[in-house]
Amino acid sequence: MDVRPPDPHAWLRTLDRRAQLRGRAGLARTLRPRPPADDAVDLAGNDYLGLARHPDVVAAAHAALDGYGLGATGSRIIRGSTDAHAGLEDALADWLGADFALAYSSGYLANLGAIRALSGPRTLLVNDSHNHASIHDGCRLAGAETVTVGHADPAAVDAALAAHSGRPAVVVTESIFSVAGDLAPLARLHEVTRARGALLLVDEAHALGVIGPAGAGGAAAAGLGGAPDVVLTGTLSKALGGAGGVIAGPAALRQHLLDTGRTFVYDTAPPPAVAAGVRAALARTVAGDDLRAELRRRAALAVTVLRAAGLTVAEPDGGVVAVHAPGADEAIAWALACLDKGVAVGAFRPPSTPDHASRLRITINVGVPAEDFRAALDTIVAAAP
Amino acid sequence: MDVRPPDPHAWLRTLDRRAQLRGRAGLARTLRPRPPADDAVDLAGNDYLGLARHPDVVAAAHAALDGYGLGATGSRIIRGSTDAHAGLEDALADWLGADFALAYSSGYLANLGAIRALSGPRTLLVNDSHNHASIHDGCRLAGAETVTVGHADPAAVDAALAAHSGRPAVVVTESIFSVAGDLAPLARLHEVTRARGALLLVDEAHALGVIGPAGAGGAAAAGLGGAPDVVLTGTLSKALGGAGGVIAGPAALRQHLLDTGRTFVYDTAPPPAVAAGVRAALARTVAGDDLRAELRRRAALAVTVLRAAGLTVAEPDGGVVAVHAPGADEAIAWALACLDKGVAVGAFRPPSTPDHASRLRITINVGVPAEDFRAALDTIVAAAP
Ligand SMILES: Cc1ncc(COP(=O)(O)O)c(C=O)c1O
Ligand SMILES: Cc1ncc(COP(=O)(O)O)c(C=O)c1O
Repeated sequence: MDVRPPDPHAWLRTLDRRAQLRGRAGLARTLRPRPPADDAVDLAGNDYLGLARHPDVVAAAHAALDGYGLGATGSRIIRGSTDAHAGLEDALADWLGADFALAYSSGYLANLGAIRALSGPRTLLVNDSHNHASIHDGCRLAGAETVTVGHADPAAVDAALAAHSGRPAVVVTESIFSVAGDLAPLARLHEVTRARGALLLVDEAHALGVIGPAGAGGAAAAGLGGAPDVVLTGTLSKALGGAGGVIAGPAALRQHLLDTGRTFVYDTAPPPAVAAGVRAALARTVAGDDLRAELRRRAALAVTVLRAAGLTVAEPDGGVVAVHAPGADEAIAWALACLDKGVAVGAFRPPSTPDHASRLRITINVGVPAEDFRAALDTIVAAAP
Repeated sequence: MDVRPPDPHAWLRTLDRRAQLRGRAGLARTLRPRPPADDAVDLAGNDYLGLARHPDVVAAAHAALDGYGLGATGSRIIRGSTDAHAGLEDALADWLGADFALAYSSGYLANLGAIRALSGPRTLLVNDSHNHASIHDGCRLAGAETVTVGHADPAAVDAALAAHSGRPAVVVTESIFSVAGDLAPLARLHEVTRARGALLLVDEAHALGVIGPAGAGGAAAAGLGGAPDVVLTGTLSKALGGAGGVIAGPAALRQHLLDTGRTFVYDTAPPPAVAAGVRAALARTVAGDDLRAELRRRAALAVTVLRAAGLTVAEPDGGVVAVHAPGADEAIAWALACLDKGVAVGAFRPPSTPDHASRLRITINVGVPAEDFRAALDTIVAAAP
């Protein structure tokens, strides 16, 4: 029997040792704070439509800041609900064709909340292997049996459902996938879930504002808006230029989330100024076919220029352009070389990539001046390993 | 063998049925959005020091909004780190006497991240039964064996650690508990964890700004600031008047969170304007012994007035004053009657209370004019069931 207490400092030494190993493997991460007047061309953030700095968005946030102060001061259930939240939720529900929308303080907590809300003791969760960390965590937290299936594979989903027939089931997928930028086969997935009596939960984080009628996302594009067996989650932090998340879907889900949703009830509401700013961004987004056309033009141009230079580029279905990198070190060095020349791009490497491949990840940002965008593509090519 | 697919609408009917049952049991929740010029006396939010509307806080947020736009546009790892975040984190670490502080988009995600970061495959988690939902969820998500012990009971913690000796262990507690308002016996808990070679994780959500030297919280008050075997989490959404969360502790934890912390890496950073506003709130908080003295005076006055009226009031250790209510329906009716008279208070009932008791929950808010506060206490007494 081991009766010695564990060394209280052993954990620190373990963490240090592991950090060193990761550092040697090129997997250490660093924060690079940017100043307000950062002059890097931003092809790394998720501000697809350039709305984070849109004058209407900033003005709406200023006004709500003066009206409400900074914080919401409490959970939505207690003191955190303001007209800014209610107005945003009405507009989101309208846009998405859903019976209701509830705003969360993050897309992460929206995913945790949605998956848990849809899970009962016998529920089977079917999870695309490329899904975001918050979805994987949501499955884990829900405590329901989870089958992770191959990426974007309706036949695999069907087989998983068939193998557990007679049980309630929820199939969870992103619409535009965050790392590789491809669109899930939503119409086919819905055929499968409908035939098997399962629910379909779609995380629209990278699709809202970017694809679909009025930018309403992948489910809307696939004709699934308002379907009674489809639930949507999304973020307010990407094309909508702010912060927070959303769950939208059939009416019966709303009261269930209000009464039992832990990540809604036990979490401080997003700041009213953020809700108001996002609402202004949504108005510009709905009227933003011009922005989406420009986004598509730029994504196509990126593919053309990068492929012409011999780089391997996945076909983008939205604003994420994923470029093959030979390895994690090369991806990091490539991104740093771009940053040196004033172009911010993402470097995605394990464990942030679902397939253990490393990538340069370019996000299209319509807010970047067109000539800067064109020049940035040349910078990326010149810095390629 | 059951070959019929489940009815795709069965779940909606189930949710509806359950909502009706909760409604009949007085457990349905409603959102009550407030306008900017809401004239209710706020004794329900967690804006303890009245800083959400402090001119310095609002001005700092305005300035950062103009400098950065609304959203951070990405994860802290990608594009989300700004000087506003870095400045806030330096100030937080300084204040808490910790080697580092990292800002999260919510206190909820900070708790999920901290508990997971401290959990290895053999780790034992010891969880106070009154801990917040985000801590319970953190234990569940960490996947480590969890023992939930009686509330504020160092002997029970010691017994749990003794029963699993030789294993790495983490004891998790709030400092000021959110529902009943009592302070955990932190010094005695630390004696136990140190003797057993365990770590102590303290959620300072309701203590930051409220107790301790310069308002630095319960661990600081107990002389545990900077202890190498103590990790702190907290929210920026309560006394600090904004939104977001924080993890602070020994240096080695920082890189571990940057490299592997899913709720840090895969989540959009809090808006720069929120970080800047919270930093201004922190400056006022550090210099806020006047505010804390007033908070203590008001808490004592509330206890005196309510007890004089025959109500059962727990002794508050911070800004939460919990008043016994006979049942869930009575708690709700009481709170609504107060709201009718212009006084917002919380009604906490199962499942939001750890002990299945219902309470009126009054939070002291120094931003409320003193005479309004005094009058509000009379309103609460007059509306008592
Ligand atoms: C697909 C996906 N889902 C959810 C999230 C989480 O959203 P948030 O950053 O608002 O927490 C993200 C990104 O951060 C994402 O890419
Ligand atoms: C004790 C405690 N921990 C954590 C949280 C979560 O913090 P946040 O609201 O910032 O997510 C709260 C309240 O919301 C709380 O009361």
